[in-house]
Amino acid sequence: MDEMVINSGDTAWMLASTALVLLMTPGLAFFYGGMVRTKSVLNMMMMSMISIGVVSVLWVIYGFELAFGYEANSPWYGSISFSGLGGVVNDFTNNGGLYPIPVLVFAAFQLMFAIITPALISGAIADRAKFTSWAVFVAIWSTVVYFPVAHWVFAFGNKVGDTVTGAGYLAGKGLQDFAGGTAVHINAGAAGLALAIVLGKRVGWRKESMRPHSLPLVMLGSGLLWFGWFGFNAGSALAANAIAALALINTQVATAAALAGWLLVEKIRQGHPTSLGAASGAVAGLVAITPACAFVAPWAAVVIGLIAGILCSLASGLKYRFNLDDSLDVVGVHLVAGIWGSLAIGLFGASSVNSVGVDGLFYGGGTELLAKQTIGVALVGVYSFIATLIIGYAIEKTIGFRVKRDVEVAGIDLNEHAETAYEMTSSSRGGSIL
Amino acid sequence: MDEMVINSGDTAWMLASTALVLLMTPGLAFFYGGMVRTKSVLNMMMMSMISIGVVSVLWVIYGFELAFGYEANSPWYGSISFSGLGGVVNDFTNNGGLYPIPVLVFAAFQLMFAIITPALISGAIADRAKFTSWAVFVAIWSTVVYFPVAHWVFAFGNKVGDTVTGAGYLAGKGLQDFAGGTAVHINAGAAGLALAIVLGKRVGWRKESMRPHSLPLVMLGSGLLWFGWFGFNAGSALAANAIAALALINTQVATAAALAGWLLVEKIRQGHPTSLGAASGAVAGLVAITPACAFVAPWAAVVIGLIAGILCSLASGLKYRFNLDDSLDVVGVHLVAGIWGSLAIGLFGASSVNSVGVDGLFYGGGTELLAKQTIGVALVGVYSFIATLIIGYAIEKTIGFRVKRDVEVAGIDLNEHAETAYEMTSSSRGGSIL
Amino acid sequence: MDEMVINSGDTAWMLASTALVLLMTPGLAFFYGGMVRTKSVLNMMMMSMISIGVVSVLWVIYGFELAFGYEANSPWYGSISFSGLGGVVNDFTNNGGLYPIPVLVFAAFQLMFAIITPALISGAIADRAKFTSWAVFVAIWSTVVYFPVAHWVFAFGNKVGDTVTGAGYLAGKGLQDFAGGTAVHINAGAAGLALAIVLGKRVGWRKESMRPHSLPLVMLGSGLLWFGWFGFNAGSALAANAIAALALINTQVATAAALAGWLLVEKIRQGHPTSLGAASGAVAGLVAITPACAFVAPWAAVVIGLIAGILCSLASGLKYRFNLDDSLDVVGVHLVAGIWGSLAIGLFGASSVNSVGVDGLFYGGGTELLAKQTIGVALVGVYSFIATLIIGYAIEKTIGFRVKRDVEVAGIDLNEHAETAYEMTSSSRGGSIL
Repeated sequence: MDEMVINSGDTAWMLASTALVLLMTPGLAFFYGGMVRTKSVLNMMMMSMISIGVVSVLWVIYGFELAFGYEANSPWYGSISFSGLGGVVNDFTNNGGLYPIPVLVFAAFQLMFAIITPALISGAIADRAKFTSWAVFVAIWSTVVYFPVAHWVFAFGNKVGDTVTGAGYLAGKGLQDFAGGTAVHINAGAAGLALAIVLGKRVGWRKESMRPHSLPLVMLGSGLLWFGWFGFNAGSALAANAIAALALINTQVATAAALAGWLLVEKIRQGHPTSLGAASGAVAGLVAITPACAFVAPWAAVVIGLIAGILCSLASGLKYRFNLDDSLDVVGVHLVAGIWGSLAIGLFGASSVNSVGVDGLFYGGGTELLAKQTIGVALVGVYSFIATLIIGYAIEKTIGFRVKRDVEVAGIDLNEHAETAYEMTSSSRGGSIL
Repeated sequence: MDEMVINSGDTAWMLASTALVLLMTPGLAFFYGGMVRTKSVLNMMMMSMISIGVVSVLWVIYGFELAFGYEANSPWYGSISFSGLGGVVNDFTNNGGLYPIPVLVFAAFQLMFAIITPALISGAIADRAKFTSWAVFVAIWSTVVYFPVAHWVFAFGNKVGDTVTGAGYLAGKGLQDFAGGTAVHINAGAAGLALAIVLGKRVGWRKESMRPHSLPLVMLGSGLLWFGWFGFNAGSALAANAIAALALINTQVATAAALAGWLLVEKIRQGHPTSLGAASGAVAGLVAITPACAFVAPWAAVVIGLIAGILCSLASGLKYRFNLDDSLDVVGVHLVAGIWGSLAIGLFGASSVNSVGVDGLFYGGGTELLAKQTIGVALVGVYSFIATLIIGYAIEKTIGFRVKRDVEVAGIDLNEHAETAYEMTSSSRGGSIL
Repeated sequence: MDEMVINSGDTAWMLASTALVLLMTPGLAFFYGGMVRTKSVLNMMMMSMISIGVVSVLWVIYGFELAFGYEANSPWYGSISFSGLGGVVNDFTNNGGLYPIPVLVFAAFQLMFAIITPALISGAIADRAKFTSWAVFVAIWSTVVYFPVAHWVFAFGNKVGDTVTGAGYLAGKGLQDFAGGTAVHINAGAAGLALAIVLGKRVGWRKESMRPHSLPLVMLGSGLLWFGWFGFNAGSALAANAIAALALINTQVATAAALAGWLLVEKIRQGHPTSLGAASGAVAGLVAITPACAFVAPWAAVVIGLIAGILCSLASGLKYRFNLDDSLDVVGVHLVAGIWGSLAIGLFGASSVNSVGVDGLFYGGGTELLAKQTIGVALVGVYSFIATLIIGYAIEKTIGFRVKRDVEVAGIDLNEHAETAYEMTSSSRGGSIL
């Protein structure tokens, strides 16, 4: 292990990025947890936390090799190996020879992506899933859906002479997805749609008020997500270079524009821009720019974000028309913005800003890239939706997925976790509560 | 674009610093949001969030060029250009040839400063500003005040042979402001003073209790501010070097000393050190050390912080004497600590700790630097105060700036945003509230 | 000061790590603050915040030199000097010549360790300590216990030719403690045990409900701790290299496994995995992997974490058997997991993953390392326990350490800080509370 070999600057940024992306999952727990009623806050947060527990352990045992091992040389999956990361401890990744960083930091960085993707799904089935069944779902879904799909999209292969071996199917076909529009967001969004169908609507949906119990908690969640997303997107450069800088600023300005776009729609339609809209708009922008962040110019990032905010604001109301209780808008935000952002590369992609980028329709590149993007979007979306339906129904029919009606009504926190989120009866001023 | 040119270590630190400074604005939203009553939490936070939305978009369109473009070669403003950052995507900044980093990471880093500065002002007008008018104010104020003032202070110019072109007025005059004591804190503090005058006092001020509704939220905000401020101050080195390390440790010890100083004053005057005092003292210390952090020795940072804590603790009570509802002490903390920190460089500045530093009064440098600092403080403070008064009154007289009395009494969250921060009626344990 | 000398990548990671470790102390404040009742939230958080204030100032005056100065060449303490960091401002640390970084960033990084260690102790004496006495305790304990113990463990000495000068006692004896299992966690755990004895049980302990007042706040705290701990552990490499990457991924997977382990125990014993268990399990895993993170393979990290989760889950119930009000499980988590993690290196240590590592029992290294680890654990634990008992009783007998019974019953926040955490009576919707 020659210390001189690695690029310490690139490694420093990857270490920091990995920490940033880990924080996104607690951030998501607060974003989702704030949106539900007080009786199901803890369960909502625990669905994210157990994803950290389950996926991290699987990642060591076989997940990393299944997603990124290239010995199998299959476009559909990586290596099937149970070496427990033992084989790569002293390796470096070279990314074509340019940026040598330790493989373990790449493995840790990608682990965080594998953790948050199933956690994202949980928003579609708020307040009504058995906790143990959810944990089982996370384990199966990661193995059958996430690890292979990550291979399709993120395994760029190993170049030996003129031959590329071990590239994933979509990476090999020329799909452009810088940080996970397909593998993470469309994947999670389509899976959320499937699970919302499997589990059905909450008791009282559209009849009772289900307003967010704490908007400050939602704002905290979206703030931490935004912060962590700089690691997610700019970290996907795997280096501290000009590409990372482009991804960083595009992430910022697209997100800001989406926040403004969502608020504009609210102002026009209902007269009141809301804090829930600001938080949701920000997440929509973050999702949309994720695949595109290093392939487009900053002005295009603003446009992509603005449209994402407007689009998702309109789309998140459609669940009422389709009578689908996608409780926290996983479909309306992650699926819709994920599709939009992935296709937008086909429009705004500019090789002038990134030497490995491809010109999209507006830069004279024709419709070729747009077609590739569409194929990628469709393949990941359809596979994830069908596979998740099957896994979901299999769990429902065997160990059961949905809690009993009285558990749901009385509160899932108390019944599944024997806790309530807040105990505020001991205040001292005024004698009354709080 | 030659990847070999850039310093990946410096770039890594700038990427991380940019993320850190972004987090400060949500942090500020919590710091301010916790301090207001439950009926105006969301509005308080939204004033920060919309600053992110508005300023980011302006920054791409013309803000960065107006603040940092140097083609105009004017000491008062940068380039007037609507190129949407298009011209700089593949450029590097060289800072005199020492630390090549991508211009886009510098642009992203400085964007975060442009975002938080107007957000800071919002604390002076808590609970009573129309949201749309505030958004308009942010756009105008950034254009007329922040972008030019940032140019005065932060545009160090482009050295071509022996000639420096495009330097800002105060930078050229030898003002020492490492991370924004003048451009950010005095600027925001003076503007807060102006807006508090324009909007007037809250209904019930000094008659009703206006205690912070959630001190844990205030503590969260100050914790995130502290954390992010390491990016703000040490990131202003634009490199991962000994200057950044000096800025980092000085930021920590000055802040800690200010926290202790504020608590000491409370202990002596009222007998009770408060958590609000700890949070406020920390922010006072962070503000005071901001301009000085890379120009003074650690022992001097402790002294500067300690005095900042004591000074701001005393100053924040003066608003009652002047009958000015600077609601969350923007003047008492940011203006006062900003002035103190900027002048303190004239006292404690030490060329022995920073080769581009200048000796202050206590290091045998005489009063020359102190005079320069005084000029910078006065110019920024007076310009910001007058310009903000004009902008504020113009908005008040046209679209209106202050909400109606009944909106304010009933709660601005409900009326401006159609939301309330907390909905805690659905708890399951005990049947009662929470 | 030659800028070319330092490694900017390593420095970038150390700057970021320092910021991350600072955030752990507010994180701890929320973790602990969420666990107590509403009437003592602020006091709980303030015990952490004042630790930042006191220790930072002492660190500049004499703490850093006492812990890391090597002129004295004593195995028991560093240099006794009141130079206020003045002597090291322009120095670099070379760590044997490999990674030159500015000494000030090392000093700032280690300061954060010195801050959080006394803050950790506060959990053992929740709701019942005089605030001023606590501040005095922090000052004395840091001087008498933390600074010397940090020297024993972390002072690796200065190699001049073949001679190592200034190494700490345990470092010189071959104790392996990568990031502070002994100096931080066993130290704080043993001190917590001592103080819980000194202060005695809370009024109403085991009679009244003392459930956490806000589990979302606990989750926030544990999330920030987890995030910051990447700086704590991977930053202890003092470089952005393969060792840091190993520490990073081991930290993640051990923590995840511990979270799962604690929940498994709860599921089996009580039928309900709790969010408090998830948060506590995560912290147990973080503690256990701290000393071992750069000395073991990832599979071993999973095992160490899993056992830590199970062990601490069982251990934290023992306080009821011993009738010891270790209120927030400082002993059950930090002491137990700290001992387990330190000894586990003697079992799982593998020189194949770290060239300066030593093979433990399971890698054919025999019991030699295990013996060294045991000595280190015992020395730190016993010294800390006895010294803390003496300091604690001395404070109790002089200025008093415990608040009066009626203060405790009415609420320590109101009496010690003249504040209450929440003021939620001004809500506008429904007219009622919140």
